Amino acid sequence: MTNNHKLFDNERAGAIYRTAAQMIYENGFNATSMSQIADAVQLTKPGLYYYVKGKKELLHAIMAFAMDLLETEVVRPAEKIDDPAERLRVVVAEHARLLTHEQGTLAILIDEVDGLSEKYRQEIVGRKRRYFDFVRSTLEELRQAGRLRDVDTTVAAFSMLGMVMWLSRWYSSDGRLRGSEVARDITEIALGGLLREPERASPETSQVTSGADDPPSAPT
Amino acid sequence: MTNNHKLFDNERAGAIYRTAAQMIYENGFNATSMSQIADAVQLTKPGLYYYVKGKKELLHAIMAFAMDLLETEVVRPAEKIDDPAERLRVVVAEHARLLTHEQGTLAILIDEVDGLSEKYRQEIVGRKRRYFDFVRSTLEELRQAGRLRDVDTTVAAFSMLGMVMWLSRWYSSDGRLRGSEVARDITEIALGGLLREPERASPETSQVTSGADDPPSAPT
Repeated sequence: MTNNHKLFDNERAGAIYRTAAQMIYENGFNATSMSQIADAVQLTKPGLYYYVKGKKELLHAIMAFAMDLLETEVVRPAEKIDDPAERLRVVVAEHARLLTHEQGTLAILIDEVDGLSEKYRQEIVGRKRRYFDFVRSTLEELRQAGRLRDVDTTVAAFSMLGMVMWLSRWYSSDGRLRGSEVARDITEIALGGLLREPERASPETSQVTSGADDPPSAPT
Repeated sequence: MTNNHKLFDNERAGAIYRTAAQMIYENGFNATSMSQIADAVQLTKPGLYYYVKGKKELLHAIMAFAMDLLETEVVRPAEKIDDPAERLRVVVAEHARLLTHEQGTLAILIDEVDGLSEKYRQEIVGRKRRYFDFVRSTLEELRQAGRLRDVDTTVAAFSMLGMVMWLSRWYSSDGRLRGSEVARDITEIALGGLLREPERASPETSQVTSGADDPPSAPT
């Protein structure tokens, strides 16, 4: 997976993508104009065009930025973990945490892919696919070790990701629940739903078990 | 919850709603014209207008039809069940089964609510809300009986419904997996993720336990 590191270096671009993403998330891609985005980020319209060539390029830049976030904050930390159950725990917890913190930016990735030009669509769909394959291969490792419930790994991967990504539809940072609490509960539900219980209760995997019940590194 | 029984009596209307829903699901509400829908259901345009007054009325009729299906095939059978764990199992299994059988019709309910006029939007959002409350009250019963994992019932309800409704995004009836297999696996994951394991393993609740591991009434 390749990152466009330039985006991370450029805080201003990141701020523009986040603001534009939130507007598109709330009002839809078609109902959001470049003038409105320029106003919201306190740039003139020519100023905004210094950062992006056009509206479709902006949509692509936001999605590439969102995939950078997902790869940097979820995949990179997870892929260093040998134990597949612990790796799964980190993926669910960090993806859920990221969604509560970067709701608009991540939601765009789900709902607006059809607004991309064909070349960009293929690129983003490919990166999303690699993330899905990373999750499914972790589940496949668990299955081969007899640690997954008796379910198909494709169904399991989509169910886990669906549960997490549904957050973009219902979670409100103004609401009763804190992002860290939501991430903790979703991690508990996902791991409980995917791992065989004897696995979670066995002494050999006490790290995993305690991790699921009371995450030592729960996002705060 | 009130049903518009007339819709069920009228098979032709149901066939129109299903076909139109599938077209809107695949191409979006704005990109689907009344002429295209009329062609697809082999009616003249005036013939189609005999059934629906206009495109926004059609969208509402499809959603009311989808809520009728959900209430008739998921809520009605479930609300007769006293045991909340068994009731939850029936909700997940039947909602998942319905989504694999009526993918377009149910998906519209998720993605196109903003296309409704305000009066209709309130009506459909209210019916969806009552369904959500039905699920959450079942989880609340389980929580009070000490049978729910240590998670917030709102997070639990959205996670369970998100997992099921995500089906509308990834499931393909032409694919490798049969709808009945997918519904079975999602039920296993959801119940495993929501119910405390001692609850599922205790002899007093053997019916529930065997139901989750190998559903005696799994949809086929």
